[in-house]
Amino acid sequence: MSFDQLWNIREEPFEPTKLHHKETIFTSGNGYLSMRGTFEEGYPGDRYATLVHGVFDDIPLVFTELVNIPSWFALGIRIAGERFSLASGKILRYRRWLRLRDGLLTRAVRWRSPAGCTVDLQFERFASLDDPHVLCQRLAVTPVDFSGEVQVQTGLDGRQDTLGFRHWVWIDQAIQESSAWLHARTRETKIELAMAMRVGIHGGHDLQQAGWDVEDHPTLSASWMAEPGETAVLEKIVCLYTSRDVDDPPRSAREKLAKLVGITWEALAQANQAAWAREWEACDVIIEGDDNAQLALRFNLYQLLIAAPRQDGRVSIGAKTLSGFGYRGHVFWDTEIFMLPFFTFTRPEIALNLLSYRCHTLPGARRKAQLNGFPGAQYAWESAATGDEVTPVWVPDFNDPRALVRIWCGDIEIHVSADVAYAIRQYWKTSGDDGFMLVCGLEIIVETARFWASRVEWNDEQSYYEFTDVIGPDEYHDHVDNNAYTNHMAHWHLTTAANLLDWAAQNYVAETEELFQRIGIGPEEPERWRQIAAQIYLPFDPDSRLIEQFDGYFQRRDLNLVEYGGRTRSMQAILGIEGASQTQVIKQPDVLMLLYLLPEMFDERTFQANYEYYNARTDHTYGSSLGPAIQAIMACKVGQVKEAYEHFLISAHADLYDVRGNAGDGIHGASAGGLWQALAFGFARLEFNEEGWAVNPRLPEHWRCLAFKFYYRGEQHSVEIRRGDTGYEVRTSQKDQT
Amino acid sequence: MSFDQLWNIREEPFEPTKLHHKETIFTSGNGYLSMRGTFEEGYPGDRYATLVHGVFDDIPLVFTELVNIPSWFALGIRIAGERFSLASGKILRYRRWLRLRDGLLTRAVRWRSPAGCTVDLQFERFASLDDPHVLCQRLAVTPVDFSGEVQVQTGLDGRQDTLGFRHWVWIDQAIQESSAWLHARTRETKIELAMAMRVGIHGGHDLQQAGWDVEDHPTLSASWMAEPGETAVLEKIVCLYTSRDVDDPPRSAREKLAKLVGITWEALAQANQAAWAREWEACDVIIEGDDNAQLALRFNLYQLLIAAPRQDGRVSIGAKTLSGFGYRGHVFWDTEIFMLPFFTFTRPEIALNLLSYRCHTLPGARRKAQLNGFPGAQYAWESAATGDEVTPVWVPDFNDPRALVRIWCGDIEIHVSADVAYAIRQYWKTSGDDGFMLVCGLEIIVETARFWASRVEWNDEQSYYEFTDVIGPDEYHDHVDNNAYTNHMAHWHLTTAANLLDWAAQNYVAETEELFQRIGIGPEEPERWRQIAAQIYLPFDPDSRLIEQFDGYFQRRDLNLVEYGGRTRSMQAILGIEGASQTQVIKQPDVLMLLYLLPEMFDERTFQANYEYYNARTDHTYGSSLGPAIQAIMACKVGQVKEAYEHFLISAHADLYDVRGNAGDGIHGASAGGLWQALAFGFARLEFNEEGWAVNPRLPEHWRCLAFKFYYRGEQHSVEIRRGDTGYEVRTSQKDQT
Repeated sequence: MSFDQLWNIREEPFEPTKLHHKETIFTSGNGYLSMRGTFEEGYPGDRYATLVHGVFDDIPLVFTELVNIPSWFALGIRIAGERFSLASGKILRYRRWLRLRDGLLTRAVRWRSPAGCTVDLQFERFASLDDPHVLCQRLAVTPVDFSGEVQVQTGLDGRQDTLGFRHWVWIDQAIQESSAWLHARTRETKIELAMAMRVGIHGGHDLQQAGWDVEDHPTLSASWMAEPGETAVLEKIVCLYTSRDVDDPPRSAREKLAKLVGITWEALAQANQAAWAREWEACDVIIEGDDNAQLALRFNLYQLLIAAPRQDGRVSIGAKTLSGFGYRGHVFWDTEIFMLPFFTFTRPEIALNLLSYRCHTLPGARRKAQLNGFPGAQYAWESAATGDEVTPVWVPDFNDPRALVRIWCGDIEIHVSADVAYAIRQYWKTSGDDGFMLVCGLEIIVETARFWASRVEWNDEQSYYEFTDVIGPDEYHDHVDNNAYTNHMAHWHLTTAANLLDWAAQNYVAETEELFQRIGIGPEEPERWRQIAAQIYLPFDPDSRLIEQFDGYFQRRDLNLVEYGGRTRSMQAILGIEGASQTQVIKQPDVLMLLYLLPEMFDERTFQANYEYYNARTDHTYGSSLGPAIQAIMACKVGQVKEAYEHFLISAHADLYDVRGNAGDGIHGASAGGLWQALAFGFARLEFNEEGWAVNPRLPEHWRCLAFKFYYRGEQHSVEIRRGDTGYEVRTSQKDQT
Repeated sequence: MSFDQLWNIREEPFEPTKLHHKETIFTSGNGYLSMRGTFEEGYPGDRYATLVHGVFDDIPLVFTELVNIPSWFALGIRIAGERFSLASGKILRYRRWLRLRDGLLTRAVRWRSPAGCTVDLQFERFASLDDPHVLCQRLAVTPVDFSGEVQVQTGLDGRQDTLGFRHWVWIDQAIQESSAWLHARTRETKIELAMAMRVGIHGGHDLQQAGWDVEDHPTLSASWMAEPGETAVLEKIVCLYTSRDVDDPPRSAREKLAKLVGITWEALAQANQAAWAREWEACDVIIEGDDNAQLALRFNLYQLLIAAPRQDGRVSIGAKTLSGFGYRGHVFWDTEIFMLPFFTFTRPEIALNLLSYRCHTLPGARRKAQLNGFPGAQYAWESAATGDEVTPVWVPDFNDPRALVRIWCGDIEIHVSADVAYAIRQYWKTSGDDGFMLVCGLEIIVETARFWASRVEWNDEQSYYEFTDVIGPDEYHDHVDNNAYTNHMAHWHLTTAANLLDWAAQNYVAETEELFQRIGIGPEEPERWRQIAAQIYLPFDPDSRLIEQFDGYFQRRDLNLVEYGGRTRSMQAILGIEGASQTQVIKQPDVLMLLYLLPEMFDERTFQANYEYYNARTDHTYGSSLGPAIQAIMACKVGQVKEAYEHFLISAHADLYDVRGNAGDGIHGASAGGLWQALAFGFARLEFNEEGWAVNPRLPEHWRCLAFKFYYRGEQHSVEIRRGDTGYEVRTSQKDQT
């Protein structure tokens, strides 16, 4: 495959000051696990990580975290006796690139050792999309100007930490001349993991190999003699299982490795490429006329695809995907509202897995509701293996090492339960998957409706139902009353739950009766939900068409954000937590989010008025990474395509160019997911109605073409929007879901 | 040396359920570092630790902790291909013993492998008291009933964690066939550490050796063939330096190792024995008629001796010595009030180092005072490398993983500043070391006096000075007013500071003037201290002779502790933090502590009345480990020798028999130190006056003899108290300090 500007993320030359950022960017994976783009030879302060879905362990303050598993791709290399390191000697050539087409990460370095031996090194690795338990690595070494010894050490290193904390307890290992395995378990959750590896070396002469049986770090050591221009290649295959996958991980890992005997590295790479080709066939989006946007978009979709569980319905994608330690692998509403639509429309099987996670964790949501004194189920603001609330209650205060800051999201940011219901209904409407709705979706929607019906408060003075003391999507303002987003979503949720029960009762009598009996529901309960919904306060000023974000928001101090241009920190960092809260500056478009999700509730003038009002008051650059993509969609809706494009780029570049300065903590998954929505629902203005679907494009001026595919009701539709001389030409085609 | 019941701590048979307790008990060290008695072959859940004085690194919540250094004594052993482990095969014989005479830890095991090969293994290790940078280990392997291969791996393992947290960053290493070195630094404090090791093997045949250059774990691998009855011995010498000791730790470690070439393991062991013989010559205490007490006492003194810095005046002994992770190596008043007298009287050079730590950290104490708005210096409740306050402000609540408990000791347990001053004056009075007083001691006492004079509050209603909102030594009651201990110690401190300034001005004119100028003090300031001291409220009821522990204590609920006999938890655990606070139950004898430290302030009737009152209300068994030794002294004072002996044993057995259930966290250093005071100032009733000193013994009935030595004013005095037919025979002798 040749080097293709539209499919390759590249670093050239080496940028040592961006170590953590680049590690995140060059993350590769297969939806079962991902590994950061850390260098094989290791550097002090690097953030090595391979993260496997569902492998959580306990840790103080943040309760549970996704655990960095034993290292499998570290390489110790000596060239004529000198340790290879980019920090010593001289880098004569350097290129690192991630091939988005198939997830192959490559680095080519020409290095001159301190003693003057010049060598070409090419590193490659990938996690197979064809078989999620197979990891492949390759190193090619070619002396340029010397004859001498090349030594390489590679093993399975159990002594990994996760942000400094060690989770793994060694159990057992074995090693032979060219193969080894390691078996360990997590400290508290007792999840077992086993890796089996095999190394093959081709080329060179006087090859010597040895197995070093160092506890918790079985290491294979190889050395050979090489002449100038003579390339030797080391190939390493690792098979990995955990006790989440199989009963006996060491056995499964060893058996898988044994099955791969005789299969070449190239054959494994080809199987991976074939799997990726199918993936992109379904998911790719074409932008013509904007190579920058094309590459950035593919990068973001790739990052979603490598984090998407294909074999597991008990896990979901954390806010930082599997690409870093930020938010410790915890799952937020980011998945359902921002990432899920991409999967719902292009890879419904993956969407089903992600929603199944909310089924699997419904008991945890029930426990949270019960702890808070509510019936039904209340989803955790931050969720991990069990669905119990794992939002840290206290976090260290960066300004004062002696102090802690109280985090209230786990207590009062309650909209997430409606977000989950929204995603379920969207998936159901799009896929027509009544089965999922009946097996689990409806139960979630009903149980969480019960939570809303209990959480709602009657305001006797105003004669309406309301929600006081909440946090909406805009987290610059907490402990607010009647957050428009929350009230509307609760209203929608209660109404939808009642309607769905009617639908089920009419269409699936037996299943519905079983559900009614199982969770003890009678006809009076949905009736009551409708009554409550009808009386929930929905803030709206008919004159200005403005929706007040929460009670008293318009009375807060009105800052002119233009005066803060060129800043490099969030408005909250500048004004302080309390200071920001006293102003109308918002972290993300809270009301616009509502308009986006529930457009049927509002008219054009309302869109226009609220877009203008809130656009000027949003911390687009350093507020929430969730905002810009939604802002882009709403800008398209009100005809501001140029502004839409600007927001689109902020979102597209969030991680690629580290525009927020925190990409080192991991990919902003919601931003990546929002990007696809910005294309489909923003620029293409894809809409669904009773008759089917339609696009009504508003493309940026320099885009010649936008093309994408999506599934709707079991059929895959292709859309190609091409800018013609007089307007847009739209071509569509469709085929049945296989 | 033969096995001696009075000098050896023994485990026989193996007690696998007491892993952590035994690791603490079998801690060995040399005052520069200590290593827990962890098994060489390692077990899941064991708490390996080697802790070096002063090697602290940052960590959330507790701010800073003493760091577990790279492992140096781990051994991987294979007997005819099977991994040696006490968890597999069969243990036919087992004995582990710590020789208190010279700190040699030995374990002798006869083990039968699962396949039936029987082998004798003898492990030995010690940290040289002769040269603190030298560590020695030995393993003897003797096949009993098979001929076959013995394999041993041993290295320097940098991947150690401290309670799960990894502090070390690898820098460099090298390895040859029989030697290796490792260089690493701590994450935040950037303390560098280097270890160099050499391994020699004697006996066996077909010896094969290899160096495995695994990053961060250079490992030497050896294998040999052995016949039944044929013993092979592996000897390992490790040299260790940190950047706290030298500029170039790897160089110093390698040079030291090179110097030891040609010196046998036995010679190193003999040098260590000679150093220990000198140590015990000064410090040993003989108890005849009570072997149990004799051994327990020596064990406690040994634990103090191996934690005592001999070469370093910038460190002090933490509450848990160097023997565990409890309190993270932080230093409390435990050192000055409980441990220091042992050193002041038997090893004044060590006492001087420990007090120098308070000089070294005086800037930290000044920072703490300034942060709290006071002039002068206020010592931290918990202190580490710099003397800044490192008491955790919040700790996890064991009953509720979501909650944190606020710890107030760092804010309001203020008596520690007076305790430091008390220890300085005691050292000075005992040693006659005017030099230390002038160079630093006086400055500490004066600067902390300034704190007291500012912290004190005038009570207009009562017309006295008082201290409100404090915590006294009894931590079951916090936020109390007029804690008798605190008020009295502040009174003593202000008076003493003024008197010392007079003494200095009279005897050392130039030095005093220099001090007056440097810290800006005039004659009016000590005058003011005297005025304040004269008006500090000192609670006392002349009728009952009772001292109320704090305002309102007598009104708290009076529990009968007899009704709680047989409990296995502290009264605070039973009643809850708030519940215990509402009662008169105390964690440790707060008022009695005061009577002990300032006896000149009180008469016999006061001793008697308060002993009786508070003795009945103290949680002796599960309250503070600081209490029993002081209780023993006060019991002797009021003639309750039987009770004194009971308290003495509680203290003596605290760690040896794990009577509190938390010995796994490390040695209770204050309890160990209190024990020596109980002998000298309790049973022997050693007293000092203007003429010199005297004993007035009250020995437990079955003790035939109590003998000890102490330094007083530069002379070493020996006291032998022997129970005669008609009373005590006391023999004394003295010699000049060398």
